[in-house]
Amino acid sequence: MKKIFLVISLLSGLAYGQSSVQQLAPVNFSDVTITDPFWKSRMDAVATNTLQACILYTENRTGRIRNFEKAAAKTGKHEGIYFDDSDVYKAIEAMAYSLKHHPDAAVEKKADEWIAKIAAAQLPDGYLNTYYQLTGLDKRWTDMEKHEDYCAGHLIEAAIAYFNTTGKRLLLDVAIRFADNIDSTFRLQNRHWVSGHQEIELALMRLYHQTGNAKYLALSTWFLEQRGHGYGRGVIWDEWKDPAYCQDATPVKEQQEITGHAVRAMYMYTGAADVAAVTNDGGYINAMQRIWEDVVHRNMYITGGIGAQGKNEGFGADYALPNESAYCETCASVGMVFWNQRMNMLSGESKYVDVLEKSLYNGALDGLSLKGDHFFYGNPLASSGGYGRREWFGTACCPSNIARLVSSLGNYVYSVSADALWVQLYIGSELNTKWQGADLRVKQLSGLPWHGAVSLQVEQAPKKKFALRLRLPGWLSEAAPGDLYQYINNSVGLPVIRLNGEVIGFNTDRGYAVIDRKWKAGDKIEINFPMQVRWVKSNTALTENKDRVALQYGPMMYCVEAADNAGKAWDFIVPVTNDNAASMASASVVNYEAKLLDGVNRIEFDVLALQGSADGKSLQAVPGKRKAIPYFSWNNRGAGEMQVWLPTAIRSVKVNP
Amino acid sequence: MKKIFLVISLLSGLAYGQSSVQQLAPVNFSDVTITDPFWKSRMDAVATNTLQACILYTENRTGRIRNFEKAAAKTGKHEGIYFDDSDVYKAIEAMAYSLKHHPDAAVEKKADEWIAKIAAAQLPDGYLNTYYQLTGLDKRWTDMEKHEDYCAGHLIEAAIAYFNTTGKRLLLDVAIRFADNIDSTFRLQNRHWVSGHQEIELALMRLYHQTGNAKYLALSTWFLEQRGHGYGRGVIWDEWKDPAYCQDATPVKEQQEITGHAVRAMYMYTGAADVAAVTNDGGYINAMQRIWEDVVHRNMYITGGIGAQGKNEGFGADYALPNESAYCETCASVGMVFWNQRMNMLSGESKYVDVLEKSLYNGALDGLSLKGDHFFYGNPLASSGGYGRREWFGTACCPSNIARLVSSLGNYVYSVSADALWVQLYIGSELNTKWQGADLRVKQLSGLPWHGAVSLQVEQAPKKKFALRLRLPGWLSEAAPGDLYQYINNSVGLPVIRLNGEVIGFNTDRGYAVIDRKWKAGDKIEINFPMQVRWVKSNTALTENKDRVALQYGPMMYCVEAADNAGKAWDFIVPVTNDNAASMASASVVNYEAKLLDGVNRIEFDVLALQGSADGKSLQAVPGKRKAIPYFSWNNRGAGEMQVWLPTAIRSVKVNP
Repeated sequence: MKKIFLVISLLSGLAYGQSSVQQLAPVNFSDVTITDPFWKSRMDAVATNTLQACILYTENRTGRIRNFEKAAAKTGKHEGIYFDDSDVYKAIEAMAYSLKHHPDAAVEKKADEWIAKIAAAQLPDGYLNTYYQLTGLDKRWTDMEKHEDYCAGHLIEAAIAYFNTTGKRLLLDVAIRFADNIDSTFRLQNRHWVSGHQEIELALMRLYHQTGNAKYLALSTWFLEQRGHGYGRGVIWDEWKDPAYCQDATPVKEQQEITGHAVRAMYMYTGAADVAAVTNDGGYINAMQRIWEDVVHRNMYITGGIGAQGKNEGFGADYALPNESAYCETCASVGMVFWNQRMNMLSGESKYVDVLEKSLYNGALDGLSLKGDHFFYGNPLASSGGYGRREWFGTACCPSNIARLVSSLGNYVYSVSADALWVQLYIGSELNTKWQGADLRVKQLSGLPWHGAVSLQVEQAPKKKFALRLRLPGWLSEAAPGDLYQYINNSVGLPVIRLNGEVIGFNTDRGYAVIDRKWKAGDKIEINFPMQVRWVKSNTALTENKDRVALQYGPMMYCVEAADNAGKAWDFIVPVTNDNAASMASASVVNYEAKLLDGVNRIEFDVLALQGSADGKSLQAVPGKRKAIPYFSWNNRGAGEMQVWLPTAIRSVKVNP
Repeated sequence: MKKIFLVISLLSGLAYGQSSVQQLAPVNFSDVTITDPFWKSRMDAVATNTLQACILYTENRTGRIRNFEKAAAKTGKHEGIYFDDSDVYKAIEAMAYSLKHHPDAAVEKKADEWIAKIAAAQLPDGYLNTYYQLTGLDKRWTDMEKHEDYCAGHLIEAAIAYFNTTGKRLLLDVAIRFADNIDSTFRLQNRHWVSGHQEIELALMRLYHQTGNAKYLALSTWFLEQRGHGYGRGVIWDEWKDPAYCQDATPVKEQQEITGHAVRAMYMYTGAADVAAVTNDGGYINAMQRIWEDVVHRNMYITGGIGAQGKNEGFGADYALPNESAYCETCASVGMVFWNQRMNMLSGESKYVDVLEKSLYNGALDGLSLKGDHFFYGNPLASSGGYGRREWFGTACCPSNIARLVSSLGNYVYSVSADALWVQLYIGSELNTKWQGADLRVKQLSGLPWHGAVSLQVEQAPKKKFALRLRLPGWLSEAAPGDLYQYINNSVGLPVIRLNGEVIGFNTDRGYAVIDRKWKAGDKIEINFPMQVRWVKSNTALTENKDRVALQYGPMMYCVEAADNAGKAWDFIVPVTNDNAASMASASVVNYEAKLLDGVNRIEFDVLALQGSADGKSLQAVPGKRKAIPYFSWNNRGAGEMQVWLPTAIRSVKVNP
């Protein structure tokens, strides 16, 4: 624990102080052009179909934009739910990120239109919330659960994103006015307020870094510090939910375990990490270490999804991770990406990026159809056949959330610290940033997630010696930090790394291969990640997965879906044991199929298939084959049975289900 | 077909004409006191818990009563859905029926309060609909789908029921004014109007019989005749649903098959039967014969439930009757009871009562929890474990509908014709009515649905000779008319009937045993219905039930529920064949368990249970036992697996589901 309090050095490119606990900083997505075949197609789908879906539903099929028009006109009936303004802001944020690398005049025009309506609706004092402006301003700030500050947070994030892409500051000025209004309404009067849905904390930290104005840091900290003192008791929670639902049972720094609503938790800890990165506040960091372990060691699905329960959209008992009823909200996986990035920034430990990668490639990406026009709100790990993505939701947080994540993917590929460039994710891309006062340009090619060949070509580099820190993905060894999931068959070991064609040795540090040298244009690193089928088992405490295995290949979890298996996905066992796991893995056939699901690896493996005898009076287990596809790509060929966790033994059956 | 046009004779006790096609008339429930142990407990549950649930949700938890207050005050925002007035009326109707045999001053006071509010809300011209009165009267009668006439129909039914129980005519006067307003708005101007949800037709026929005013007969007929001419095209259906959804694709008399929304269909055909009973219109009767056969031979579940599809709350393709996703709305089974009673009245054929009984004891009664405080909207025939009754629904048609059916159960037990008393259902009861100008009093005791001993004691009878017509239930021979379902094991035959202790012979006619004599006080009929376990199979066209059997005992369908079977209901086969069906039936143990589910027969029978071997690598079918309970009583011990149709052969499995 001690090392994370060490101040390593000045981070270049960061606006904040030199004495930060923060060890590294992400390279902003605006300096990273994604060229990766896999991810480029996801981003294109978002830039076209997802944004169009957001526009269609935000503007036409629901009253979200009309609410701003009515608020500006000071007349009309509010349509929808009290938090619907946030979806407009998140859509603008996604548009802003997408416009950076996918210029689209029509999308930008639409965003400008919306922003003009938003600005027109703002009150002279800076307040902006169409729900209260249309149902009675006398009621504003009377109900902590009504998401006024949550909507403000998303306004701030959208405003910053749009300003940074377009240079247009109308929305940023709106956001600043509202932030100042909130600051004077609450912090400056020390009027207690427990946010009913955390979000404003992380948003204010963005505004602090954007403007350099310390009052936003102070306000973010103030919001965090409001929690756990009973300020909401009798006001919201007693009537509505338990304080633990909203991480309000104890002060943040004293929290011992993960509780409650998953998205609220992720956003809050992200904000706390952002504050700690500036203030070096060990209280937050200690608490988050404990809570992160509670999440990852006892409460996280193998997909990186979190929040097992629908009833609280959040966490249940430790190890209670049912598969078919898994809630695993898309937004919660998006939040896991945010939070784990911050935890990595604070510690330089790769285990956080392992979790980030797991959530990104599985739990989050599953929320989006291949075409980008259908969405999962929840992401179960098994389906009896009736579950499918939908065009939109009454509570529509997920579509714009996955859109803003995917279109800002470049944020998660590279980081920098005082003396190193960190390669966090192996995603084909062109890095072109300023670092150490010089230009740094690197071109990455990656075969992941389908094969393990990766290359990094330096095109321009500072003259000074620096380290290239190459993340050694957790899936080379263990599935997740802690002992919740373990591989059955052993890894084939570390990757071979070549520098300019020659195999080189390397040191490892906190999960990274470190190659420290003076780099010059033309230097080329080639990495060959050993890829193989990995069988994964669960800690025995996770009783839902007793006698079950999952199938992993690289960062991707796989699933068996009806469409590849004659309409069935629940009718076999995988006879994997400790003894035969290696041979069963190597006997599995991994095939990249370019025409399947926009191009995926399909894995064929041996099973014992259960089938009735001719007379239907008995049943045999006969050798057979089944095919698996990446989990994120299921339900793109209609609804059907699906399973991630595959049985290894027959304990019970349903006949003719 | 011909015989149903024969006018049999004058029916005593009927207000309408002597030349009616109607052969028999039901004895009104007010002349039938239910004493039956099984049904009395259901009626008590309705009189207490169900009515209280209706009051709680109608008045407090939703704005249904507030809407009337606001309409009276001509100010305020309408709460809920545009058809919510109907739930108030149906609750009053249920209260009225219940008050007849369960006087309850508090319930009557509540009904009086509501009725005063309803009356206060009525406009001077007779119009009454809180939705339009609160959202804009200029829009009234502009959208055929907005249920204004549907609500009017339920108002009329409630008003008649309440008047007949209490003699208070405030609501009846309200209903008459609204009916007159509708008559002058539409029929008298021949302004076309296709009801978006049929109901007013049958209600107007009640009003016709109540008042003797022929204009309500004319208006009911007019509504029926509006359908099928395209009057709704471009007005409602094109924008909303296909005309067949609402039985508006062709004129009623030309309809060839069942289509669309199940409740709309049932209510319409009930109204058409009521009109035909007075007007002798063979067009309606012919059409209904065809449609009834289409329902019962190709589109009805073994529970008497109809409307397989959720998407249209109605009928799908012939024989497309999936079990787990079966919609089978409670209200549609209530409608089946209504319609089949009318079809029996028109024809004197017992097959209609067979279907009525099937729907009543299974598809309808399943909608109500044993305590009467939880409800099913849909009634599937299988559950993977997640399905359960709920306290209320957004669209809350079902709770008050099952309440009014159960509390008026006495309507379905006896009928009279010119020369006969018809015993339709074997339900313990005291009949006390005027017939043939004399008092007729009969006391029935019945062991059904648990055992077959029934007695009927004449306590007072007209001096003239008349026939006692005792229905010979269809479950003595075949499961349903037509060949959709068939018994595998043979019946043990007709019942033994004793008159004053002596076994007598009897003639049968249209499904009734006919005992024609001069009856005197003290005469006692004893019937011993042969009860046995019946295995039922489906027509092969019903592919969902391939290799499956259902279990029936008397009128009750049985199901296997997790609670009686170590938490599983899908893990076995019933090895029933044509050859062993009789022996498997007689080997089954039928046990009345007084403490189980308020007292039910539980049936234990032989199965081959599927279980994994010790190492989990193979599976065996081993002899075992399973227990079944009456279908209506499932889901009263928590949610769990359930099946009505039990597999007889293994065709596929789910492992560790």
